[in-house]
Amino acid sequence: MSVAFHAEHGTDIPCARLAQYQQVRQHSEALIAPLSAEDCALQAAAFVSPAKWHLAHTTWFFETFILLPHVPGYQAYKTEYQHLFNSYYNGIGKQFARPKRHLLSRPSLQDILDYRHAIDDAIMRLLQDSEEWDELVVLGLNHEQQHQELLLMDLKYCFFQNPLFPVFGNSKIDAPAQLLIHEGYENFAGGLFEIGAQGSGFHFDNETPRHQIFLKNFQLARSLVSNEMYLAFIEDGGYEQAMLWLSDGWVWRQSENVTHPLYWVKQADQWFEYSLQGLKPLNKKQAVSHVSFYEAHAFAQWCGTRLPTEAEWEVAAHQTLYGPHQTTLAHMFDHNWQWTQSAYQPYPGFKTPQGAVGEYNGKFMCNQMVLRGGCDLTPEKHSRMTYRNFFYPQDQWVKTGIRLAKDLGE
Amino acid sequence: MSVAFHAEHGTDIPCARLAQYQQVRQHSEALIAPLSAEDCALQAAAFVSPAKWHLAHTTWFFETFILLPHVPGYQAYKTEYQHLFNSYYNGIGKQFARPKRHLLSRPSLQDILDYRHAIDDAIMRLLQDSEEWDELVVLGLNHEQQHQELLLMDLKYCFFQNPLFPVFGNSKIDAPAQLLIHEGYENFAGGLFEIGAQGSGFHFDNETPRHQIFLKNFQLARSLVSNEMYLAFIEDGGYEQAMLWLSDGWVWRQSENVTHPLYWVKQADQWFEYSLQGLKPLNKKQAVSHVSFYEAHAFAQWCGTRLPTEAEWEVAAHQTLYGPHQTTLAHMFDHNWQWTQSAYQPYPGFKTPQGAVGEYNGKFMCNQMVLRGGCDLTPEKHSRMTYRNFFYPQDQWVKTGIRLAKDLGE
Amino acid sequence: MSVAFHAEHGTDIPCARLAQYQQVRQHSEALIAPLSAEDCALQAAAFVSPAKWHLAHTTWFFETFILLPHVPGYQAYKTEYQHLFNSYYNGIGKQFARPKRHLLSRPSLQDILDYRHAIDDAIMRLLQDSEEWDELVVLGLNHEQQHQELLLMDLKYCFFQNPLFPVFGNSKIDAPAQLLIHEGYENFAGGLFEIGAQGSGFHFDNETPRHQIFLKNFQLARSLVSNEMYLAFIEDGGYEQAMLWLSDGWVWRQSENVTHPLYWVKQADQWFEYSLQGLKPLNKKQAVSHVSFYEAHAFAQWCGTRLPTEAEWEVAAHQTLYGPHQTTLAHMFDHNWQWTQSAYQPYPGFKTPQGAVGEYNGKFMCNQMVLRGGCDLTPEKHSRMTYRNFFYPQDQWVKTGIRLAKDLGE
Amino acid sequence: MSVAFHAEHGTDIPCARLAQYQQVRQHSEALIAPLSAEDCALQAAAFVSPAKWHLAHTTWFFETFILLPHVPGYQAYKTEYQHLFNSYYNGIGKQFARPKRHLLSRPSLQDILDYRHAIDDAIMRLLQDSEEWDELVVLGLNHEQQHQELLLMDLKYCFFQNPLFPVFGNSKIDAPAQLLIHEGYENFAGGLFEIGAQGSGFHFDNETPRHQIFLKNFQLARSLVSNEMYLAFIEDGGYEQAMLWLSDGWVWRQSENVTHPLYWVKQADQWFEYSLQGLKPLNKKQAVSHVSFYEAHAFAQWCGTRLPTEAEWEVAAHQTLYGPHQTTLAHMFDHNWQWTQSAYQPYPGFKTPQGAVGEYNGKFMCNQMVLRGGCDLTPEKHSRMTYRNFFYPQDQWVKTGIRLAKDLGE
Repeated sequence: MSVAFHAEHGTDIPCARLAQYQQVRQHSEALIAPLSAEDCALQAAAFVSPAKWHLAHTTWFFETFILLPHVPGYQAYKTEYQHLFNSYYNGIGKQFARPKRHLLSRPSLQDILDYRHAIDDAIMRLLQDSEEWDELVVLGLNHEQQHQELLLMDLKYCFFQNPLFPVFGNSKIDAPAQLLIHEGYENFAGGLFEIGAQGSGFHFDNETPRHQIFLKNFQLARSLVSNEMYLAFIEDGGYEQAMLWLSDGWVWRQSENVTHPLYWVKQADQWFEYSLQGLKPLNKKQAVSHVSFYEAHAFAQWCGTRLPTEAEWEVAAHQTLYGPHQTTLAHMFDHNWQWTQSAYQPYPGFKTPQGAVGEYNGKFMCNQMVLRGGCDLTPEKHSRMTYRNFFYPQDQWVKTGIRLAKDLGE
Repeated sequence: MSVAFHAEHGTDIPCARLAQYQQVRQHSEALIAPLSAEDCALQAAAFVSPAKWHLAHTTWFFETFILLPHVPGYQAYKTEYQHLFNSYYNGIGKQFARPKRHLLSRPSLQDILDYRHAIDDAIMRLLQDSEEWDELVVLGLNHEQQHQELLLMDLKYCFFQNPLFPVFGNSKIDAPAQLLIHEGYENFAGGLFEIGAQGSGFHFDNETPRHQIFLKNFQLARSLVSNEMYLAFIEDGGYEQAMLWLSDGWVWRQSENVTHPLYWVKQADQWFEYSLQGLKPLNKKQAVSHVSFYEAHAFAQWCGTRLPTEAEWEVAAHQTLYGPHQTTLAHMFDHNWQWTQSAYQPYPGFKTPQGAVGEYNGKFMCNQMVLRGGCDLTPEKHSRMTYRNFFYPQDQWVKTGIRLAKDLGE
Repeated sequence: MSVAFHAEHGTDIPCARLAQYQQVRQHSEALIAPLSAEDCALQAAAFVSPAKWHLAHTTWFFETFILLPHVPGYQAYKTEYQHLFNSYYNGIGKQFARPKRHLLSRPSLQDILDYRHAIDDAIMRLLQDSEEWDELVVLGLNHEQQHQELLLMDLKYCFFQNPLFPVFGNSKIDAPAQLLIHEGYENFAGGLFEIGAQGSGFHFDNETPRHQIFLKNFQLARSLVSNEMYLAFIEDGGYEQAMLWLSDGWVWRQSENVTHPLYWVKQADQWFEYSLQGLKPLNKKQAVSHVSFYEAHAFAQWCGTRLPTEAEWEVAAHQTLYGPHQTTLAHMFDHNWQWTQSAYQPYPGFKTPQGAVGEYNGKFMCNQMVLRGGCDLTPEKHSRMTYRNFFYPQDQWVKTGIRLAKDLGE
Repeated sequence: MSVAFHAEHGTDIPCARLAQYQQVRQHSEALIAPLSAEDCALQAAAFVSPAKWHLAHTTWFFETFILLPHVPGYQAYKTEYQHLFNSYYNGIGKQFARPKRHLLSRPSLQDILDYRHAIDDAIMRLLQDSEEWDELVVLGLNHEQQHQELLLMDLKYCFFQNPLFPVFGNSKIDAPAQLLIHEGYENFAGGLFEIGAQGSGFHFDNETPRHQIFLKNFQLARSLVSNEMYLAFIEDGGYEQAMLWLSDGWVWRQSENVTHPLYWVKQADQWFEYSLQGLKPLNKKQAVSHVSFYEAHAFAQWCGTRLPTEAEWEVAAHQTLYGPHQTTLAHMFDHNWQWTQSAYQPYPGFKTPQGAVGEYNGKFMCNQMVLRGGCDLTPEKHSRMTYRNFFYPQDQWVKTGIRLAKDLGE
């Protein structure tokens, strides 16, 4: 078989894969352990989904792309689920309207957990029998990890609509963490580089083909931008100066009346920030979070700097890990996804995989911006140096942050 | 005290009122007995509310209009509830945004039931002590009965968005019931009549003052319009003939692409109708239900008839009950609310009661149409001959039906 | 022939009608004399039309309802005009999209004037030959007079969008005129009255049938509300007090951010008012103009009064003209149309005339409010005591004002 | 002085520049010669502007960026024009609302022509005196040429809303022209190239800095896609196959119900195409025009090909002009602007010029796609190989076409 997603091979795969499968699948259920069925049904906007829908959809993915097409005699668990839990795969069929996902009180959360366990049984039997579908299983697990992160970001957005500012119930998740600030910028020499994924190790299709790219000399900030720095931008009137903003960004800022990062709340002249741990006084030493690309861009303009390109980010990350820069670039993967100035476009030679699974990434390569790195909601080992995350420039509900870059004279 | 809502008085009030209070309050909780917490959180549009919100709001009404202002030393159960469960009383304060009611997973359904029981305790103590607040208690109970009906209509609308067409779980509610059709029209002589509420017996402020009105001779249909008759209208192209429709009605029919009553569904060329009992083949002998005023008006035009005025309906209902017409007008209260051609306007001499409770009815007297009678979701003894229900002309989710009228030569 | 519009008959009709026809038709063209072709093409919102469109549509009316159906062998002047200049007559065919009327640079203003003159020739020949179509001609002339008033109100709205605050060019039209204020209220005794049109004299179908109506005693203000009184309402925070407003009115006021009558402009802390004579300092002694029904209602609530019903207005107008009240009610017809609290509904026994001309009035009898009287833009002799004007409760661009009423104890 | 726009220098500049100034300015007025003042006021959507506004705005550009800041003692022609004719320069001040430009009947077309001539006098005096402002004058002329093309594209869009399908009146403009089709693809070898503008000759800031880019081998179609080829796509159901479309493109195609290029019209089962020459039967041998990026992308997917990147286009154009490919790539500049698959982003090292004129290009570098080449509405000598045009992916009203590309194995 051939999908455009590459997973590592080896002799102990079946056993390791089984363990990995169980770990990832159980992790999803562990995430919702502190939540009620009512919490799991929340959907505050079309761009977020209820937690229970995430649990069902990730299960649907295994059923639809592995069990139904490849297991002889397999009968759909419930035929209606094919429709209800399809996210955007037109190749599979019509999808239940996205903004209405919160209206599915039936099937219940318990029904969905039952669905998960039934599919788990079938997949695990498959994994024990054969390596044949291993690449698709690995894709399904990486897909599920993406949804684990989304589930938490979506929940945060939904909870935030509630004036009671609910506390999630797991004190380790989205807990405010102070930045260890490394001042200044690191220099990187330009030249012809290769970026993109290759060889062993799982990666998504959008990370390929590995290809050459020419970069000028550049500088990358050692740390992410802190709340303190961002507050200075606000206090200097950054949200009132049209000249700092992209044209579409200014329209967005005006029409939505945006004046601060998404989860900042001003009460009695004091700033607070909401996280899944509740509403807390703003911590100036944390990385600024939940800013849109437009805000990141305006902030960089205000600093007289710019955002990095995705190629600069990847080259710098590689040199940091394998070269002389090893320790100097902090917070590459562990606080916030970092907006780049690169539009999300296909790499030269990119080909969409055949079939419905080919809708995974390619069709989104328009109007979105690339983010690099990872955040503290990202499941362990999910991200990597070549990983390309992507969102619309106005999206704030993603756990995003800002790393600045500069041109460097030759 | 003085509110503009009139309740009967008498010696056995305290005891009877206590029983009535318990009956009404328990009935609300009985209604949701077949539902899960997930079902109780559904809100498919801004004009419907989650069942749990109805349970909380009706409780808020007792707390806000009786306990908080009148019971010395009473402390709000939870201060946030004053905001969360205020529907539209600007005199009380800002309201939590109506379209977001489904986002309140906290407080949970159980929290809300606890709230109900705490307020019940306080009100029942009050009722045992004094008759002083009796009028407000009666208003609160009638208010709760209105919400019992709304709760079911709202739930029906929400369930209908689910392609699984959920079944409610109480087989008596919204069960399809055949009409006993009485053919033809009853004649009524014109003259100067009095309409409106007076004297003993509870009524809302909008039913007063009782006043004189002059009517011409008229005819009123003995039965409601059946699905069979309405189907003939559809099959004759009634939804395609602009000349049958009011101007705003035609705009609505076009922009919303309405081609049948709300809960009709066509599958494989056969008509079905959704009720809380699930999706069933359309029963031609039932009353047509869930049509907007615009549809009712167009149907009447197609028949060469018209809808009755609210005064005609009330005069006819009175003569039916107390006069020679006693048995001939069927289905006045028991199938569907009946659209009249009367805009919802204040009766001559109408005065809004003082204070926030005065927002109950008066401020809605614009852009809505009067419906008379009652429907099979209306709590027993809740409606009456002078009762004025009112909704927007495009509203279909209310359990409405059509009774035709005609002019009668002199 | 029989249309539901009644015009007087008599021996000298043909000659008088010819003169009247010429007077009305020339008046339309006189109105636009100070305007450029560019001015005549303005359309600032879907609810207003370009002046040139009014000129064409009123001509289309004569062609469509008289020449095309009734003159043997008559060929349409241009077949495309049937579509382009149809306003809302579904019985005639599809209409060119209303919000796009400003896009018809072709036909030019001159083309439209040519069209007018060609139709004038045909109609005048017809009038010389026969009285047969006299009723329709009279209807066409009254229709044109309605559009003369609309043309000016629409133009005012369009000009107002231009920061240059254009001056119309005819110093008599919409010129600010001081009110002669008569203080206080006039009393009227209740009883059974007749209202509506009858007998000789032109009237629209919506003014019939004349019918009986029972009124309680009431009071009507002798004068219209002045800018000075309305300013006191604003300065007292009338636009901030939700309790004064109808529910839909408050939603409108909030969503549109309305804080004053349409043409008031505040510059450097001073109030100005725009009229077709340009932007002038607000004259406190004028009648307040261009308020919506919602504003009129809130103002009346703030005064502890109410708006009159249309029956009260008509009965009072009749008694003023023919009875003891003769001189005491001022400004009934000459400053601003007066909002009533009556929804626009059919009179008892109202029947829509047959054919497309039946769409004239009946299909609008929903969601609108009745205005009575007339304004200084109303063509002479166009209005009358039984005239029912109607607009949506949010409409401000109509030249409206406020006359207060009160209940009167028995 | 220093602006980021580079114009050639030399000894005969003043005289040549004067001639160029007169030529460009007169050309704008020649374009509207066949139009009435009514035609010149049309604005059918917020993204198009009235012809008279283009005439005024291009004049405002010279006044605002040259006369007002640099000519001592210069008084604004009319201070209100600073506001009315500012397009999007926040650095200059607030702009009159874009969607309302059609509401400016005053100033009249004649007033605007007077404005043009007054500014022309002042600029021409300046040009005779000094070369000092030459770069800004050249920028102003290139700016005006951009608006000459826009004026025609905007007019076409406005005229198309008129069911009379107006004919422009200058038979040479937008006249349907047959393609000389060259079949097949040209091969280009990859490698490290330089793209972007440099040296003498005017160019916009967005074409710089010239920089290195690495390309793989690729193929570029010799001709543009014809109507015949595009018709095959339609007839094969291309607009119905979600799998061919980008995700946002499919949403756009569905919500706008797009089923063909903008100006195609089907009448009685036959295809027509509108141009400024009127509605004509579709010519299959012409280049397909007025397709959005989404349509271009879907068409390329359907062909199993892709769109070129802007770097591929520029390298190929350069080799065609200066190398062995000289004659083989047809229609690079003369039929339709060609969508590339490149998002409009800053070139490496791009810096926004200081001051308001810096808003010219940089702030639009988000959400738009690059187009290369030119079209038959582009003023002569205006475009060039390094020219970067940019529009939103859904824009159809631009005169766009499709040139296909392919990867080429190594």
